[in-house]
Amino acid sequence: MLYGALEAGGTKMICAVGNENGQILDQVSIPTSTPDETMPKVIEYFKSKLDESLPEDDRIIAVGVACFGPVDVRPNSKTYGNILYTPKIPWRNFPMVKTLKDALNIPVGFDTDVNGSLLGEVTWGCAKGLTDAVYFTIGTGIGMGAMSGGNLIHGMLHPEAGHIAMSVVQGDNYAGHCPSHGACFEGMAAGPALEERWGKPGRELADMPEVWDLEAKYIAQAVTATIYMLSPQKIILGGGVMGQSQLFPLIRKYVLEDINEYIDTKELRNINSYITPAALNGNQGIMGAIKLAEMATIE
Amino acid sequence: MLYGALEAGGTKMICAVGNENGQILDQVSIPTSTPDETMPKVIEYFKSKLDESLPEDDRIIAVGVACFGPVDVRPNSKTYGNILYTPKIPWRNFPMVKTLKDALNIPVGFDTDVNGSLLGEVTWGCAKGLTDAVYFTIGTGIGMGAMSGGNLIHGMLHPEAGHIAMSVVQGDNYAGHCPSHGACFEGMAAGPALEERWGKPGRELADMPEVWDLEAKYIAQAVTATIYMLSPQKIILGGGVMGQSQLFPLIRKYVLEDINEYIDTKELRNINSYITPAALNGNQGIMGAIKLAEMATIE
Repeated sequence: MLYGALEAGGTKMICAVGNENGQILDQVSIPTSTPDETMPKVIEYFKSKLDESLPEDDRIIAVGVACFGPVDVRPNSKTYGNILYTPKIPWRNFPMVKTLKDALNIPVGFDTDVNGSLLGEVTWGCAKGLTDAVYFTIGTGIGMGAMSGGNLIHGMLHPEAGHIAMSVVQGDNYAGHCPSHGACFEGMAAGPALEERWGKPGRELADMPEVWDLEAKYIAQAVTATIYMLSPQKIILGGGVMGQSQLFPLIRKYVLEDINEYIDTKELRNINSYITPAALNGNQGIMGAIKLAEMATIE
Repeated sequence: MLYGALEAGGTKMICAVGNENGQILDQVSIPTSTPDETMPKVIEYFKSKLDESLPEDDRIIAVGVACFGPVDVRPNSKTYGNILYTPKIPWRNFPMVKTLKDALNIPVGFDTDVNGSLLGEVTWGCAKGLTDAVYFTIGTGIGMGAMSGGNLIHGMLHPEAGHIAMSVVQGDNYAGHCPSHGACFEGMAAGPALEERWGKPGRELADMPEVWDLEAKYIAQAVTATIYMLSPQKIILGGGVMGQSQLFPLIRKYVLEDINEYIDTKELRNINSYITPAALNGNQGIMGAIKLAEMATIE
């Protein structure tokens, strides 16, 4: 079976065709400008993949969308499938699912970008077979995808764990970068905060241990809060900032210090596999979108 | 149908019989001392409710246990149904489910006390019909029960949200009461912290607004973190401390301030019904245990 997959990001739309094994067979990237400019190209791509001139086995049967947010993922909502109050003004209230369904006339699966990445990792990556897992992307912003009992977490909206408050580390005088919250997780630890605090982008700070020690303390706070709130079986850390792999041992150390033996589980005793990088080489989001498409054919 | 229900707490074991409508038909309370002393009385109670001399319709067909923790709620675990590393030493590693099953020979449902309370409220109380909800009990300790997508959250262990770190409120010099974490939520806001900080138990502080203003700020921090992490459709606040109903308007105000319009949902616009007291008059735990018993007959 072939599925269309759309990883809808703030700067680019990755459109792909994949199969039920998560293999990506074709892929293009389209810049994200305005819906009027971008969506016709996205639709054109997927239309070409279900054209009746193709042999039936070569046509996609559904599309999955892992979308930047906030988005409405509540199936019974009147605005299900819409992008909500995003700072990207032209996309505010854009009906992503309706637009694709109307144009393509096939089932459309839909979730947040980070839930998509998590779904990719749970289906084919480092969290394969787990029912409770979390994926943080730490880059220009910070997002969290979460699964509990085998279901991606939605609820009232969907998690926005990039905005949990941080306890400011002693000696850190940085006020935080988040326009809504100042010193929240994203405000203290996302890429722009690194750059503003230290005067250079993260990739130019690789040889400064104090940068990554402080960064690890904030990430560890968020990871620890996640353990107490969600009790996941695995926590995956991805995104540009986590390209600094020196962060992982520091984060693991500070998480264990923060928990201070209050929780005793085999997962925490195997902290190296508990707090872990993404395994799908940057394809977790688009692979998750393939899975969302497959799930849409079942619903 | 009749079900046995056990709300297993650190000071008392409430044993009850209820029906499929959550009605409590009989109830006794047994002090929690040691398993050797307490459990024979618990077993005797339930045995008397399934005695063959009773008409068949008057016998319980399962028992549900909402138990103080930490507990092993992972169905496939070798130690499923055990109390784990509790500070109540005689109960450490006590096989609660196995003990009841061996003695009673009927299905036994099992979850944490706070998941039990939440389940009661979701089934018959103020969260009826919701799929994503959270219950905090704020008393001698602080615990959180959580449901996502209709399933109580377990994962690696179960939530322990009483121990998330707090950002200390400016001017508050109290170091916190938690032996593991100092200034965690429980360390800053549970009953013993109130008493240690202000020199009197909470019930004697009712007329001091500064006490409840500070208390509300810490509870609001935890509630806000819960919204970002779990995105529940409702947050129920129960336990002895929440008997101070003056806390509710303050908590709601500080949660909205903390979120600072970052999330815009109809639930948050109706904050009075979003952050709400328990509705089942102190019976939410035992009613949840009735539901756990019913669920055990289906599994």
